[in-house]
Amino acid sequence: MARFPFSAIVGQDEMKLALLIAAVDPAIGGVMVFGDRGTGKSTAARALAGLLPPIMVVEGCRFGCETPGQCPGPCTGGKTVRQAVPFVDLPLGATEDRLLGALDLERALRTGERVYEPGLLARAHRGFLYIDEINLLEDHLVDLLLDVAASGQNVVEREGLSVRHAARFVLIGSGNPEEGELRPQLLDRFGLSVEVRTPHAIDTRVEIMRRCAAHDADAAAFAAQWAQEDEKVLHQIARGQRRLARITVPDAVMTDAALLCSELGVDGLRGELTLMRASRALAALKGAKLVRREHLVAVAPLALRHRLRRDVLDESGSSARIERALAEHLS
Amino acid sequence: MARFPFSAIVGQDEMKLALLIAAVDPAIGGVMVFGDRGTGKSTAARALAGLLPPIMVVEGCRFGCETPGQCPGPCTGGKTVRQAVPFVDLPLGATEDRLLGALDLERALRTGERVYEPGLLARAHRGFLYIDEINLLEDHLVDLLLDVAASGQNVVEREGLSVRHAARFVLIGSGNPEEGELRPQLLDRFGLSVEVRTPHAIDTRVEIMRRCAAHDADAAAFAAQWAQEDEKVLHQIARGQRRLARITVPDAVMTDAALLCSELGVDGLRGELTLMRASRALAALKGAKLVRREHLVAVAPLALRHRLRRDVLDESGSSARIERALAEHLS
Amino acid sequence: MARFPFSAIVGQDEMKLALLIAAVDPAIGGVMVFGDRGTGKSTAARALAGLLPPIMVVEGCRFGCETPGQCPGPCTGGKTVRQAVPFVDLPLGATEDRLLGALDLERALRTGERVYEPGLLARAHRGFLYIDEINLLEDHLVDLLLDVAASGQNVVEREGLSVRHAARFVLIGSGNPEEGELRPQLLDRFGLSVEVRTPHAIDTRVEIMRRCAAHDADAAAFAAQWAQEDEKVLHQIARGQRRLARITVPDAVMTDAALLCSELGVDGLRGELTLMRASRALAALKGAKLVRREHLVAVAPLALRHRLRRDVLDESGSSARIERALAEHLS
Amino acid sequence: MARFPFSAIVGQDEMKLALLIAAVDPAIGGVMVFGDRGTGKSTAARALAGLLPPIMVVEGCRFGCETPGQCPGPCTGGKTVRQAVPFVDLPLGATEDRLLGALDLERALRTGERVYEPGLLARAHRGFLYIDEINLLEDHLVDLLLDVAASGQNVVEREGLSVRHAARFVLIGSGNPEEGELRPQLLDRFGLSVEVRTPHAIDTRVEIMRRCAAHDADAAAFAAQWAQEDEKVLHQIARGQRRLARITVPDAVMTDAALLCSELGVDGLRGELTLMRASRALAALKGAKLVRREHLVAVAPLALRHRLRRDVLDESGSSARIERALAEHLS
Amino acid sequence: MARFPFSAIVGQDEMKLALLIAAVDPAIGGVMVFGDRGTGKSTAARALAGLLPPIMVVEGCRFGCETPGQCPGPCTGGKTVRQAVPFVDLPLGATEDRLLGALDLERALRTGERVYEPGLLARAHRGFLYIDEINLLEDHLVDLLLDVAASGQNVVEREGLSVRHAARFVLIGSGNPEEGELRPQLLDRFGLSVEVRTPHAIDTRVEIMRRCAAHDADAAAFAAQWAQEDEKVLHQIARGQRRLARITVPDAVMTDAALLCSELGVDGLRGELTLMRASRALAALKGAKLVRREHLVAVAPLALRHRLRRDVLDESGSSARIERALAEHLS
Amino acid sequence: MARFPFSAIVGQDEMKLALLIAAVDPAIGGVMVFGDRGTGKSTAARALAGLLPPIMVVEGCRFGCETPGQCPGPCTGGKTVRQAVPFVDLPLGATEDRLLGALDLERALRTGERVYEPGLLARAHRGFLYIDEINLLEDHLVDLLLDVAASGQNVVEREGLSVRHAARFVLIGSGNPEEGELRPQLLDRFGLSVEVRTPHAIDTRVEIMRRCAAHDADAAAFAAQWAQEDEKVLHQIARGQRRLARITVPDAVMTDAALLCSELGVDGLRGELTLMRASRALAALKGAKLVRREHLVAVAPLALRHRLRRDVLDESGSSARIERALAEHLS
Repeated sequence: MARFPFSAIVGQDEMKLALLIAAVDPAIGGVMVFGDRGTGKSTAARALAGLLPPIMVVEGCRFGCETPGQCPGPCTGGKTVRQAVPFVDLPLGATEDRLLGALDLERALRTGERVYEPGLLARAHRGFLYIDEINLLEDHLVDLLLDVAASGQNVVEREGLSVRHAARFVLIGSGNPEEGELRPQLLDRFGLSVEVRTPHAIDTRVEIMRRCAAHDADAAAFAAQWAQEDEKVLHQIARGQRRLARITVPDAVMTDAALLCSELGVDGLRGELTLMRASRALAALKGAKLVRREHLVAVAPLALRHRLRRDVLDESGSSARIERALAEHLS
Repeated sequence: MARFPFSAIVGQDEMKLALLIAAVDPAIGGVMVFGDRGTGKSTAARALAGLLPPIMVVEGCRFGCETPGQCPGPCTGGKTVRQAVPFVDLPLGATEDRLLGALDLERALRTGERVYEPGLLARAHRGFLYIDEINLLEDHLVDLLLDVAASGQNVVEREGLSVRHAARFVLIGSGNPEEGELRPQLLDRFGLSVEVRTPHAIDTRVEIMRRCAAHDADAAAFAAQWAQEDEKVLHQIARGQRRLARITVPDAVMTDAALLCSELGVDGLRGELTLMRASRALAALKGAKLVRREHLVAVAPLALRHRLRRDVLDESGSSARIERALAEHLS
Repeated sequence: MARFPFSAIVGQDEMKLALLIAAVDPAIGGVMVFGDRGTGKSTAARALAGLLPPIMVVEGCRFGCETPGQCPGPCTGGKTVRQAVPFVDLPLGATEDRLLGALDLERALRTGERVYEPGLLARAHRGFLYIDEINLLEDHLVDLLLDVAASGQNVVEREGLSVRHAARFVLIGSGNPEEGELRPQLLDRFGLSVEVRTPHAIDTRVEIMRRCAAHDADAAAFAAQWAQEDEKVLHQIARGQRRLARITVPDAVMTDAALLCSELGVDGLRGELTLMRASRALAALKGAKLVRREHLVAVAPLALRHRLRRDVLDESGSSARIERALAEHLS
Repeated sequence: MARFPFSAIVGQDEMKLALLIAAVDPAIGGVMVFGDRGTGKSTAARALAGLLPPIMVVEGCRFGCETPGQCPGPCTGGKTVRQAVPFVDLPLGATEDRLLGALDLERALRTGERVYEPGLLARAHRGFLYIDEINLLEDHLVDLLLDVAASGQNVVEREGLSVRHAARFVLIGSGNPEEGELRPQLLDRFGLSVEVRTPHAIDTRVEIMRRCAAHDADAAAFAAQWAQEDEKVLHQIARGQRRLARITVPDAVMTDAALLCSELGVDGLRGELTLMRASRALAALKGAKLVRREHLVAVAPLALRHRLRRDVLDESGSSARIERALAEHLS
Repeated sequence: MARFPFSAIVGQDEMKLALLIAAVDPAIGGVMVFGDRGTGKSTAARALAGLLPPIMVVEGCRFGCETPGQCPGPCTGGKTVRQAVPFVDLPLGATEDRLLGALDLERALRTGERVYEPGLLARAHRGFLYIDEINLLEDHLVDLLLDVAASGQNVVEREGLSVRHAARFVLIGSGNPEEGELRPQLLDRFGLSVEVRTPHAIDTRVEIMRRCAAHDADAAAFAAQWAQEDEKVLHQIARGQRRLARITVPDAVMTDAALLCSELGVDGLRGELTLMRASRALAALKGAKLVRREHLVAVAPLALRHRLRRDVLDESGSSARIERALAEHLS
Repeated sequence: MARFPFSAIVGQDEMKLALLIAAVDPAIGGVMVFGDRGTGKSTAARALAGLLPPIMVVEGCRFGCETPGQCPGPCTGGKTVRQAVPFVDLPLGATEDRLLGALDLERALRTGERVYEPGLLARAHRGFLYIDEINLLEDHLVDLLLDVAASGQNVVEREGLSVRHAARFVLIGSGNPEEGELRPQLLDRFGLSVEVRTPHAIDTRVEIMRRCAAHDADAAAFAAQWAQEDEKVLHQIARGQRRLARITVPDAVMTDAALLCSELGVDGLRGELTLMRASRALAALKGAKLVRREHLVAVAPLALRHRLRRDVLDESGSSARIERALAEHLS
């Protein structure tokens, strides 16, 4: 079925912002989406992937190389071909083997050669890896995914194999907090988190149905109707990616970040480092030349929400505590 | 043994309605049947499958293709043959391998070729997949089945295989709520749900016994006796399938759907989208040109019952709460 | 050791009745025997199997075909040979493979052919399958056995095999309720149930010992002594089997059955259907031409005892509740 | 190390009696030994096995056949050779495979032949199978061992094998009740049980040490010293085996047995049947021509102790309850 | 690293005594060492092994034969070579296979020959087998080790293998009682037990550090410094081994042993038998011709400590209870 | 990504000290890092490894030999090549096989040769082995790692392999005490432990961000800026390694160590031996000729913190108790 246009998604501003930031700076380290079932979490991610222009890939390369010879191979062809931005939806029950890649057992048995067969991480390279109900995944797989997402490299040390290949992708995990939580150590390793809720307003809900109905009725016509809006988003991302390397982060913004994390009692330093990087990406997206406090304020809930400890004296949620700290200290 | 005629089933109106809707629009996403043991849940499903006219299948195709070449193959024969509508009864203890299909190990060992051997999902294509006591199935298998039922595609990423084939079927699961429940996240993904109870009236029960006895005595004669009624049902389904694409859903009905879901506090948007699709299918079945409130009212219990949260202040059951909301808001 | 004569069994009238009914109509769906350890539950079942005349089987057929070609084969020989009625005692720890049959792995490895090797279900065809301490068997195996017993067909969907063969047998399970119970859903699927207790009367117990001693002393002489009685039973069964198809069940008896099940609050419809079939088989056994209320009354405890729900207001056992309901409503 | 002479064992009269009875009538069904650790439970069993004269076995037969051709073979040699009475000490962690025998996998892989390789049950044929700490063995293995011990046949239905061979042996299990108990259903299937305790008297203990020291010092000389006593025991066993078939059990003794079991509330009929058989074996051992009440009294604790239910109103142990019942009813 | 000289070990008198006794009479059945972590438990055992003179072994024999042909072979070479006394440190996670030896799978697959590959028990033959944290080992492995240590024979009944070879070694297990205990049944099977504690005196602790420092600084010089002391110990052991067979145990000492065990309520007879054997070994070590009460008194804590039951009325430890009993009854 | 310069790490003095000590004397036995998530624990370890000069390795040697022939081979090449100091980051889910090395299965199957394929321990030889969240690793793997780290040797006894190779590395484990603890027995085997906390001071946190930003902006320029400082550290390590063997430990310092451990109630002797060795390494690092009390005082928290028992009467943490003991007894 044709993908839903990214711009046609009603509401979900926080999720869209997080996805755009991750598209500009994939090193941000993954997006965790908390929220009710059935709120179209994967629709937005797919829509963003569908919006991006095709990438150029060395023909026949199983690792998605942009130029030949950057992978364990074979990757000899000089010709490159267009390919849609990869969007890998982790199938439930996918094994570590299939994720990481594994020994090509059949070939080993038949010819005695030990050849590595790339897995889903290789396929997600330069694209998106979406994991629904990530809280149901075994911890060691989540950890492994976060390691790869953070380092951009998949290192395989198994079955006598020792392979290393690039695996740069935006990791998106979704989960319903009512169904069991990730360990804090794992959550902390996600760059950003967003909350998605069922919209309350009747007219919003009807609008969603109307757009779904229109999409179902004639997906091509519906896409055409939103093409211009999607084009704008695409330009914004492209500009952000180009500019990112040149954005500077003023000391004052860093101090704001440190102060905010200190006030909120965030453990470790990932909080402020993510704040710094996310505000830089947002500034790039907005076309700014340097990071301003407003960028920091805008990304703070995304960067910090999942890093707060439970505070027994303060029963308000993480988002509220962040908003309050922003109001008290950064306004 | 000859199948029981669909029309000869006594009572069970809600189950029959859900099956007809799913037959008209299989994309509705599966039917969950709650109910007492021994109430003939599978009899009705089998009866419906038995009623439908045979389908045309490419001879020798292991994926049930209607026209050659739409599957991973081999599927070269130009000739198509008649085949009864598939009805797959998931055997207890069926493995993920057998469900999804798997590497043909013997062939891999013998010839070194890696050939995919289709599983039960391929066999159920264009028919029905029935799962008794679905609550005893492991969650990840249920999830996988619902994924395939919703997308109409089976994507296999295992053992170095990477296969994708069409798998469009009506998923029917049954379970006794006293035996352990499905997780709400899984229930939510079923399109419709129905409740089946042991009939109380003695004359109904005697009538059932009488029909069973007649069927046992001479199944062919019994079938002949009900052939005309079954033919009517068949025509109704065929007309519904033809018309479905042309039915429009007025805004007022969408607003009704949103309002109803909002009042009932249904999480996410699957509730109203299913309501919209199920009433459209019902309208098609009834020969209507556009969806009317009465259609919505008729399918609301089927589409919403399994999506309500427990309400601690309101001890009445889900069905009663839906009926009340319909009475208050849509009458 | 020579089998104990069926007629020489002291007492155990209910168990003997259930076995005779199942011998007349194997479709009744299995007999569940509750009772103390060491009360000779398997002795009675073996005795009945030993009593029946040999069956004719296609020579060399691994599926026990009566006439050639009715099985997945090979079954080509035109010659048929005599064979004792199969009595399969399910060994503890028998695997699903051994039960259902499985891929002949050795042959697959050696020649690349995928040949199905029949299992214990094939061997039990046209005979008895006895499962001691069935409550210790895994639920999915019990369910599978009941499926096959009810349908008379073994459908194997495993390891890439897809085989179907006839497997009609009388399933007999025994268990001590003190050792853990079967789930109600499984119990409900047994056609009949009987209760066996250690006899209290000293003279009965001495009589049992005396007959055991005589059997031990000279099994052949003991068998000869009971041959005439056993012959009578055999004729009764044969007559019952011949007549079964022609017995009619009057509406009044059906109403009795429905009423009784309704009064006892039996879930679903298996109760009354089993009542109807068991009384029909009993009528056949007794040489009657149509079913009478007395037949229904005689089989009601066997058909309903294991289908009653626990009633917290009525502490009397299932048997007592059935007797009371019979006394109140059918006398 | 040379075996300890049976007659040189100090005390342990009950255990010695049970072993002698089982040697006379192995069909008695196994001996369960309860008792403190380190009381020489296995020494007595080994001593009895060592005492028995060698048996004649077909040369090269892997099933211990006395005359050629009575096993699944190969067993063609006409020559028979002497062999010590088998005494198999079940190694901890012995698998079901090793116990029952299994497919000779290597041969199957190499030549494609499916040959059965006999297990420990075949090796124990015509001898003893000793299981220390039987309560640590998995229930299904215990059950399997008891089945074989009772039937004298090992039936293997696994891995596509279907083999049956004679396996007549005296099963001896030992266990410390403080370490966890066997399920009553399993205990009930042991023919006899004995209790072994650490002796209290200092002179007994010194006598045991003295004999051990003498045995350690010069095993051959020690054996010579006890040879005559052992010879007497051997003659007694041989006479018992010869006479067993001809001993009659008077009705009065059977009534005693039934009465005793009834008074003690033993479930099922194994109690009185074992009583009858054990007293018959004892009578044979003693050279009597018919069973007398004194024989019954002597074996009653061995045959019934492990078959009593816990009686909450009577805190005295099983042995005391049996003694009291004997005193009240049989004296 | 060069081994620490046995004589240079500071304190640990009880452990050294137990090791010497076991070196004189390995049939004593293993030494269990209880104690704090980091107290050099394995250092003492290694030191004793290092002290012993090399043994002569048939060249190329995988079973450590002293003279050719005493093992399952191949062991044909007539030449014998010197080899250090084996000291096997059981690696954590060592499998039953590696311990017992196993089928040489590779050879079986390649040539079809079924050859036994000896395990760690064969390697420990004629030396020491040390197991750190034996309480973490699975019970069945401990039991198996104790069986072999007691019998001096490794009997392998697995994978169709049936092998038996000599495996005489001193078994030394260590464990911290705070980390979980061995089952009493297993403890009872250890011949001796010792307790090792962290020394309290500062000068002792400094002396230990000083010797460690000297050893670290120049291991060869340090060894030379202690060579004469070690030589004395070696002569003592050699003399003990020669004399052991000729030492007699007077009846009075046996009575003492029985009395002591009776007073302490030791279950079974292993207590007094070990007492008798350990005092005999000690007498041999000391050059005595017959066992005296003082020898018994010296070894009583080692032989009995781990065989006492918890006494709820007497909270003093096992060692104290033994000392008290010795004081009351044997002084 | 270029490694972060060791000297540019802000704070973390204790961790840096422990790493330097371990670099000077790897036999110290591993460093355990306790601390909050996200505090750059692995950054410091990687930085130290990156700082060290390349090592010379025999070309093609899979065991990292410095000179040919010191490994199980093949290692024949006379040529040696430069290689960065190994830094192995144990992947989550690494198996014992991959850690220890294993049989090269493919080669065994293909050629029948049994060749050992080295694992991660071989790769870490002469470098670092880092284990994040070591508390999530199975105990037996931790134990195995500590054994190898302490002995400098990897002994493999598995699958019929019996291999031994040098594996000298600095073991660094990190863990968050809130996530579950290591068993005291395992902790005790780590040489040193350090605590890492999130810095509280805003200016420290901003300084960290500033350096990270500078590193991100231009890693090469940033490294150049810190090269001189890193060079100093490198010289300090080299000098320490050269001098270590010649440093003497005065008796007074040993007495201090014993006294301190005694006062703190440290079990066993590993505490004082580690104190002695760590202060010797520190003295070497500082260029001192003999160990002084100040060295002991400096390393005491690192050497003892993880060896204290919980003291129920003293709720202050381990570090505080050590500081207090140092203040009372060594000042």
